[in-house]
Amino acid sequence: MMNPVEEYIFTVQPFEIDFRGKLTFPLLINKLLNAAGQHADKRGFGIRDINKINRSWVLSRVYLDLTRCPKDRENIKVETWIEGLLRTFTQRNFAIYDETGNALGYARTVWSMIDMETRRPVNLMSFGIDQYIHIKECPVAKGGKIILPDDTSALDTFTIKYSDVDINQHLNSAKYVEHIFDAFSLDEIKQHNTIQRFEIEYVEECRYGEKISIFKKEVQPNDFIIVLKKEDGTITCKSRILFTE
Amino acid sequence: MMNPVEEYIFTVQPFEIDFRGKLTFPLLINKLLNAAGQHADKRGFGIRDINKINRSWVLSRVYLDLTRCPKDRENIKVETWIEGLLRTFTQRNFAIYDETGNALGYARTVWSMIDMETRRPVNLMSFGIDQYIHIKECPVAKGGKIILPDDTSALDTFTIKYSDVDINQHLNSAKYVEHIFDAFSLDEIKQHNTIQRFEIEYVEECRYGEKISIFKKEVQPNDFIIVLKKEDGTITCKSRILFTE
Repeated sequence: MMNPVEEYIFTVQPFEIDFRGKLTFPLLINKLLNAAGQHADKRGFGIRDINKINRSWVLSRVYLDLTRCPKDRENIKVETWIEGLLRTFTQRNFAIYDETGNALGYARTVWSMIDMETRRPVNLMSFGIDQYIHIKECPVAKGGKIILPDDTSALDTFTIKYSDVDINQHLNSAKYVEHIFDAFSLDEIKQHNTIQRFEIEYVEECRYGEKISIFKKEVQPNDFIIVLKKEDGTITCKSRILFTE
Repeated sequence: MMNPVEEYIFTVQPFEIDFRGKLTFPLLINKLLNAAGQHADKRGFGIRDINKINRSWVLSRVYLDLTRCPKDRENIKVETWIEGLLRTFTQRNFAIYDETGNALGYARTVWSMIDMETRRPVNLMSFGIDQYIHIKECPVAKGGKIILPDDTSALDTFTIKYSDVDINQHLNSAKYVEHIFDAFSLDEIKQHNTIQRFEIEYVEECRYGEKISIFKKEVQPNDFIIVLKKEDGTITCKSRILFTE
């Protein structure tokens, strides 16, 4: 049987780095999602395989603990494997390593498979996912409830455009993260040093053309809650970013 | 001596595709720039090498002719080489191939090297670039003057954010292209079918936090001029996009 752990190797490219000379955080999430895609493709339950039967994967949670961000031109290895499978959810984990094998961070993610018409979750049994369930060290703290203080007012808004959307014309999971990080000024990112913890809960899909408001609050020193809402006030995603002192 | 032509190979990843299931056009430009970086790095005049002596590369022109866009999960090879060198400009060309070696497109680009303090172009001789000058087929039409009709009014504005800027805190060359394409609706992109020609002239750098206005006009059927301006009216870049019928 195929190895349950997939390796996805990449080199940080010059146009993937931010003002710190490090891989932009949204692109780090993008790389994890690419690793997940490669793992699922090779094992027969990739998005293109399941699209044929009118199903699609939807990312619902990401919990990431990071010790440092990949640097410009650094060779990085992402390992990904499936840790658990429930009827309508599967848990996929990630480990991020530098060239010498030191772990830079770990992530836990939760996915569901949806019917592309109803957009409702479907039963995950019968895709042969269970045979790849694997237990491997993944030290990531459990996610708590993400609560935005009521007194938080909108910081900014954006409209979902061409480069934001996936093949279903929904805001792509990696682009959410880009919009969340764009809610921080360079000074905020500088003074808060490195990202230690990132959490995101995808609550409701957004379509092309929708206008999204960004709410952001520092609830504890270095600890931020960012929530994206639709025009009608519906929460589309909740996020938490904890910077190191 | 090292081969004057560098090969940069990549697979189109699931979170790199647009609503058409094809590599987003801004990311295609990004891949070309990554290929350029790899070519220059290996030959000793990469951005990190010249940053040490307080110099940096600046992209000033891109002319791209495309027959088709790379598809999801397609394996693509970009070849890049230097065709010409003048005192303050160098011309770098690109060829984009699919897995079977069919050319998907070709690009011609113009770069200058600047002094990072003065932001002025410096003399390019003495970096050993000349030894790599290479002549290879690169069928790309010459670029004409890009003129925005006077009666064009601003379509949209954006503020330069964290994910837009490079290590110098300027709008990154690939992100200009993303903002340009975001000036098109999905319907416009759909009805205009595929991109046949793309031109961009980088005129003036923009810094983090600047507010940029987007001007767009269809000057001929399927032929668009897009210009980005700063708040004071200064043109920061001019672009032309020609779609196939």
